[in-house]
Amino acid sequence: MANITKKVSWSSRADDSNATGEGTPLLNGSDQLGYSRQQSGGSISQIGRVSTVDMDEEITSEEDSLRGRPKEITHNEKLLSLKYESLDYDNSENQLFLEEERRMSYLGFRCLEISRWVVCGLIGFLTGLIACFIDILVEQLAGLKYSVVKENIEKFTAGGSLSISLILWAVLNSSFVMVGAIIVAFFEPIAGGSGIPQIKCYLNGVKIPRVVRLKTLLVKVAGVICSVAGGLAVGKEGPMIHSGAVVAAGVSQGRSTSLKRDFKIFEYFRRDTEKRDFVSAGAAAGVSAAFGAPVGGVLFSLEEAASYWNQMLTWRIFFASMISTFTLNFFMSVYHKNPGEMSNPGLINFGSFDRNSSSEYNLYEIPLFIGMGAIGGLLGALFNALNYWLTIFRIRYIHRPCIQVMEAMLVAAVTATVSFIMIYFSNDCQPLGADQVEDYPLQLYCDDGEYNSMATTFFNTPEKSVRNLFHNKPGSYNPLTLGLFTLTYFFLACWTYGLAVSAGVFIPSLLIGAAWGRLIGIMLPNLSPSSSPSQIWADPGKYALIGAAAQLGGIVRMTLSLTVIMIEATGNVTYGLPLMLVLMTAKIVGDYFEEGLYDIHIKLQSVPFVHSEAPPTSHWLTAREVMSSPVTSFNRIERVGTIVDLLSNTSTNHNGFPVVVSNANGDEPAKLCGLILRSQLIVLLKHKVFVELARSKLTRRKLQLKDFRDAYPRFPPIQSIHVSQDERECMMDLTEFMNPTPYTVPQETSLPRVYKLFRALGLRHLVVVDDSNRVVGLVTRKDLARYHLGKHGLEELQLAQT
Amino acid sequence: MANITKKVSWSSRADDSNATGEGTPLLNGSDQLGYSRQQSGGSISQIGRVSTVDMDEEITSEEDSLRGRPKEITHNEKLLSLKYESLDYDNSENQLFLEEERRMSYLGFRCLEISRWVVCGLIGFLTGLIACFIDILVEQLAGLKYSVVKENIEKFTAGGSLSISLILWAVLNSSFVMVGAIIVAFFEPIAGGSGIPQIKCYLNGVKIPRVVRLKTLLVKVAGVICSVAGGLAVGKEGPMIHSGAVVAAGVSQGRSTSLKRDFKIFEYFRRDTEKRDFVSAGAAAGVSAAFGAPVGGVLFSLEEAASYWNQMLTWRIFFASMISTFTLNFFMSVYHKNPGEMSNPGLINFGSFDRNSSSEYNLYEIPLFIGMGAIGGLLGALFNALNYWLTIFRIRYIHRPCIQVMEAMLVAAVTATVSFIMIYFSNDCQPLGADQVEDYPLQLYCDDGEYNSMATTFFNTPEKSVRNLFHNKPGSYNPLTLGLFTLTYFFLACWTYGLAVSAGVFIPSLLIGAAWGRLIGIMLPNLSPSSSPSQIWADPGKYALIGAAAQLGGIVRMTLSLTVIMIEATGNVTYGLPLMLVLMTAKIVGDYFEEGLYDIHIKLQSVPFVHSEAPPTSHWLTAREVMSSPVTSFNRIERVGTIVDLLSNTSTNHNGFPVVVSNANGDEPAKLCGLILRSQLIVLLKHKVFVELARSKLTRRKLQLKDFRDAYPRFPPIQSIHVSQDERECMMDLTEFMNPTPYTVPQETSLPRVYKLFRALGLRHLVVVDDSNRVVGLVTRKDLARYHLGKHGLEELQLAQT
Repeated sequence: MANITKKVSWSSRADDSNATGEGTPLLNGSDQLGYSRQQSGGSISQIGRVSTVDMDEEITSEEDSLRGRPKEITHNEKLLSLKYESLDYDNSENQLFLEEERRMSYLGFRCLEISRWVVCGLIGFLTGLIACFIDILVEQLAGLKYSVVKENIEKFTAGGSLSISLILWAVLNSSFVMVGAIIVAFFEPIAGGSGIPQIKCYLNGVKIPRVVRLKTLLVKVAGVICSVAGGLAVGKEGPMIHSGAVVAAGVSQGRSTSLKRDFKIFEYFRRDTEKRDFVSAGAAAGVSAAFGAPVGGVLFSLEEAASYWNQMLTWRIFFASMISTFTLNFFMSVYHKNPGEMSNPGLINFGSFDRNSSSEYNLYEIPLFIGMGAIGGLLGALFNALNYWLTIFRIRYIHRPCIQVMEAMLVAAVTATVSFIMIYFSNDCQPLGADQVEDYPLQLYCDDGEYNSMATTFFNTPEKSVRNLFHNKPGSYNPLTLGLFTLTYFFLACWTYGLAVSAGVFIPSLLIGAAWGRLIGIMLPNLSPSSSPSQIWADPGKYALIGAAAQLGGIVRMTLSLTVIMIEATGNVTYGLPLMLVLMTAKIVGDYFEEGLYDIHIKLQSVPFVHSEAPPTSHWLTAREVMSSPVTSFNRIERVGTIVDLLSNTSTNHNGFPVVVSNANGDEPAKLCGLILRSQLIVLLKHKVFVELARSKLTRRKLQLKDFRDAYPRFPPIQSIHVSQDERECMMDLTEFMNPTPYTVPQETSLPRVYKLFRALGLRHLVVVDDSNRVVGLVTRKDLARYHLGKHGLEELQLAQT
Repeated sequence: MANITKKVSWSSRADDSNATGEGTPLLNGSDQLGYSRQQSGGSISQIGRVSTVDMDEEITSEEDSLRGRPKEITHNEKLLSLKYESLDYDNSENQLFLEEERRMSYLGFRCLEISRWVVCGLIGFLTGLIACFIDILVEQLAGLKYSVVKENIEKFTAGGSLSISLILWAVLNSSFVMVGAIIVAFFEPIAGGSGIPQIKCYLNGVKIPRVVRLKTLLVKVAGVICSVAGGLAVGKEGPMIHSGAVVAAGVSQGRSTSLKRDFKIFEYFRRDTEKRDFVSAGAAAGVSAAFGAPVGGVLFSLEEAASYWNQMLTWRIFFASMISTFTLNFFMSVYHKNPGEMSNPGLINFGSFDRNSSSEYNLYEIPLFIGMGAIGGLLGALFNALNYWLTIFRIRYIHRPCIQVMEAMLVAAVTATVSFIMIYFSNDCQPLGADQVEDYPLQLYCDDGEYNSMATTFFNTPEKSVRNLFHNKPGSYNPLTLGLFTLTYFFLACWTYGLAVSAGVFIPSLLIGAAWGRLIGIMLPNLSPSSSPSQIWADPGKYALIGAAAQLGGIVRMTLSLTVIMIEATGNVTYGLPLMLVLMTAKIVGDYFEEGLYDIHIKLQSVPFVHSEAPPTSHWLTAREVMSSPVTSFNRIERVGTIVDLLSNTSTNHNGFPVVVSNANGDEPAKLCGLILRSQLIVLLKHKVFVELARSKLTRRKLQLKDFRDAYPRFPPIQSIHVSQDERECMMDLTEFMNPTPYTVPQETSLPRVYKLFRALGLRHLVVVDDSNRVVGLVTRKDLARYHLGKHGLEELQLAQT
């Protein structure tokens, strides 16, 4: 089971040499709590140990699930995994670092700055290229598929043996999805899903294993092509954000650990601080390519990442975003044999809502929009709740790769079947106009010169369906079609999200929302008093847009960035205020019932996510209550054996150690003089930087920052470093390597104040000292993430070793 | 002279009761430097004391000025005034504060949050209304003026006595401007100019006296109406930003100190932290109303203000921006008798650059755009350099209000005359088309059915001229007209900026740039090989847009926010990349020669402005070198006399005092236990919170946070508080009121690290401690602002008491 759950959990590490990574981080109490651990394969039914209710009964009894969340799942959700490490956004300003910085001339800094710009340009360019590649391949594959199926349907419509077409369609879809699911489930599970929760966590400062590796990128790209071409209710936009992030992490390091190539460039950027900045740029470039929204991309990155506003960084992020959308636009224009015609800024193209009178809104429509926002919030909360239960179910029962592949194939087949049935029984025929926008109009049982309207929504990539819902002229859809479509697509999309395929939830959300939004737009003229001029209600496309925003906002609950993304995607500032009000309402209403989809998935992984502000009622708490203590400290000159023993202690697994110094006669307590990281100690041990050795071998090269950079980011585990018995008695002088000026707070500091310092500077360790500068505790990410505002005031999550 | 210079300098305070505010902050060495101060009126020619060159000779000798900046001005520019106080963005978390926060329920926090939203909504609404008011009044007044002049010109064209028209025009302009200049020069000098430098400083955390008062707003609004209606080469956009900020500061405090009204609402917001957040929202709302750019407004505020990214705050700022542009839009649509037709999102309306093929750009045009960016950078640097010299001249010789008014009137008359002459000698006649866009077409000496093209650019509000340059069809202007117009308007705008009128530089910059941009657009088809299809070059409006961006970027050097503002104002994302490249090039080229216009004006006022990052080569410096020491500290229980004496000491004028505690037997040195502010001490003294009195009067009400809030922001000076000789012997217990957990850094901390902490948390005082937590120094804003990167590496500015 250990291996299987490794695939399920974000936090597991395949290359972990020690065995602490066993057990799923989700579903068990911690060792500290005294539960016995069962390693056997038959332990699945034992997972709910903590609960008193029988698990199976509970899942099957529907009334129970509907009444509220099952008790022990609530409990599991309130765990915080201790397995995730933090990124270090705060530079360790040790002597080596300062020496290097001081050696560098002003010109050197200029060169660094220029190379940062070059890297950002590259990130944007490559992200744009990837978007282009995905888009073209999806279009080709989906086009091929639809042509084959359409031909087949047309052949069999007369003969009546349409079941053959259905089977053909289902098989085609399933085989695409199978490929996509196999590579995800067997090769790189972290590439599953949209990747946005993972990137959110990474940007928040949580180290998610393998999330920015080359392999993840390859699987992600191939996976998303398969799943979209396979006709699942998914989008290719979320994965773009993940892809951009991986590109950024790769390019900025100037080497690939997977390919064992080191280009010896950008070595300065090999640390968490710089890397995280570039990953922000990559994520922004991804958003920009996905939606043609460079500003939205910048805001997305800022919303998720920025703890500290840095003007130059933001400007660089914007540059990457611009280059990304430009690259996509340019290559797509070449692909469409119209080079220079920049009309494809993003993967999803809402089409232009031009500034003409019909697309304007009136003041009295605003309450209507707000109402739609509320509907979006409700539907979004329902979607999230359903998906939450489904995810719990999946984690418990569907964690073997082959079952995951089978589930994905099943969903693909069901999607095809449901679509087919709905098309088959639909009698909504529309005339084929001269200004035909459908790529694959299906005639089916319609008269000649007409096409099946239901088919256009299903028989198309979701992106095109969204655009059709926005822009097809009034009367293109009949209400029943839209209603049925909304209903089925809602459940299909909900089922699909969380499958072991890489796929985003943006487009399905937009599609569901656009469908019910357009439905409202169509119904309105009937509901409103006949005296009102029908011309005002004439544009259901406007309502489709508002509905799409409401539904998307209700599901993902992003605020500022989503508004800007929607504004940019529509290419029209006019809808700014309505979109903002709708997204705000959707968020408020949705938050009342259920968290956002990404937050749910982050929480289910027990990630210690530090929000931008402390819970409002947390002034009661001070650093004294929040901190971990006692703290393991080292002396400035410490025995190697002590260090090795402490690092090898798997029960603590600390990553940062305060360094203390006692005065000469030793009567006073030790005072804080620095902070050293596990990774630094490991490099020191590996290079055997011992006081005795330094004395004996005078010619020995001094350890440089380069040695730390070379080891970054995959520092070897302590177990792989051999230290002989003699060496254990040597001493190590940490003075040069520790950070001599760690940030500290007094014990009486209130939690919000600690939180602000921690978040603003992106810290990993914050030392708590008493009034004589003696170490009394250490605040880390988990200590802050632990407190959150529940329904009954401030709640504290439990910590689990897993 | 003291009174006069008070009007010139931002930092002077009219209501200062002590006399430390004398002398101009700009032009003298500090007392510390040992220069004797002359208070007599004849001291003007003595200003250059520091220099060895005679001032008068230097200003008049043009070669000298052209060769480089005069030596002693360079010196003066390198001063940092000690007179400016800082805002406290870090809450003083003393016992009173914590008690209040702990008393507050979750519901209380929700209510607070809701009232923040309400305040932001109000800010947006009022800012929009003000924009609307300004716009309508300017249109009416300017319309009236143009009709009168046009009628007059038409009457006299035949008769040949056009000089009467010229005089009429000049007198009309001058009288408008006279009113505008009088109110600014005599009543509120801080309302002069665009207000953007002042708001930048305020958002950066510098307390600029009187900048957010009601009187300033009234003068600003009236002043900008007069100066725009008076036909000066100015815009009304910059002042909107200032207006929004004042509205925000007023509304959020729930009272007006000027009007002596206290509405007893929003009392919680009466501290620097909250006020600054609202002022950010106000500035954003101003930008939003000015340019119809809500996202640009948010980014402007973030770029200038945000040290610490706060998601909810940003979202609220965005809300204020949205409401602001919406309000303006709505009321303008009502004014234009077309309610609901939302086509006026901002004061300046670039018109719609629709997504059609003619407005697209090609890849090979990008180098051309970059070249235009470089031209913009060069012209911008020239503009700034000229304006810099002019400002120096003005500060020296034109500081009496009546002279300022006369100068403004002179400029108005000259502007009218130059315009008239250019119109008169222009023979660029264009046919009056059916789709006539000119409001006041002047026929003059053109044939019937034609109009004078030069007149359209001058005989119009600058906003409309910009729009015409963007959108008039090819062929509307001939190259000579545009060239001459660029030249004259460039110098007029340069002369105008810095007059004692409230006026912005955005629109003139755009206009200059649009003119030479369009000129380039017209010239291009002639220059390019004839084989290329002329259709591509057919749209000079595109080049006008790029030129406008280049010129504006070259002058103000804003980056991200300006790009977004331009994108939003054009309503088209397509031009995103070109605009970005242009603005970037303009900034790089411009920065090589001269700083941005706003930065120049900030520097000339010796404001301690803390940039977002430490200079790159400053790792050499540590807190030890940077800090001020020795530090004046108080004991936790301190004698009243000591406190009063220290606060009254005008030579130090400290605002923050570390509180220290010695242990019982007193053999150890005192340790830091808190930080108290001058303003807090003054409130304590005023309420006589002495230990002895507390014992005697048991019924005495305990001092509450409310008492501090009531005194905010105009704390009385220490001189106004009477302390008797008996009371001087009393003791004050500071424990309850001091901030017990001030942020500290060790002495060895490098400057960039200190800088980051200071900037990220918006600190005012940062205590430097040794390894036993004893106070060794204090870092304040001036200590950080002092270091900047000059041409020869790191430079240190001198500090001056003035």
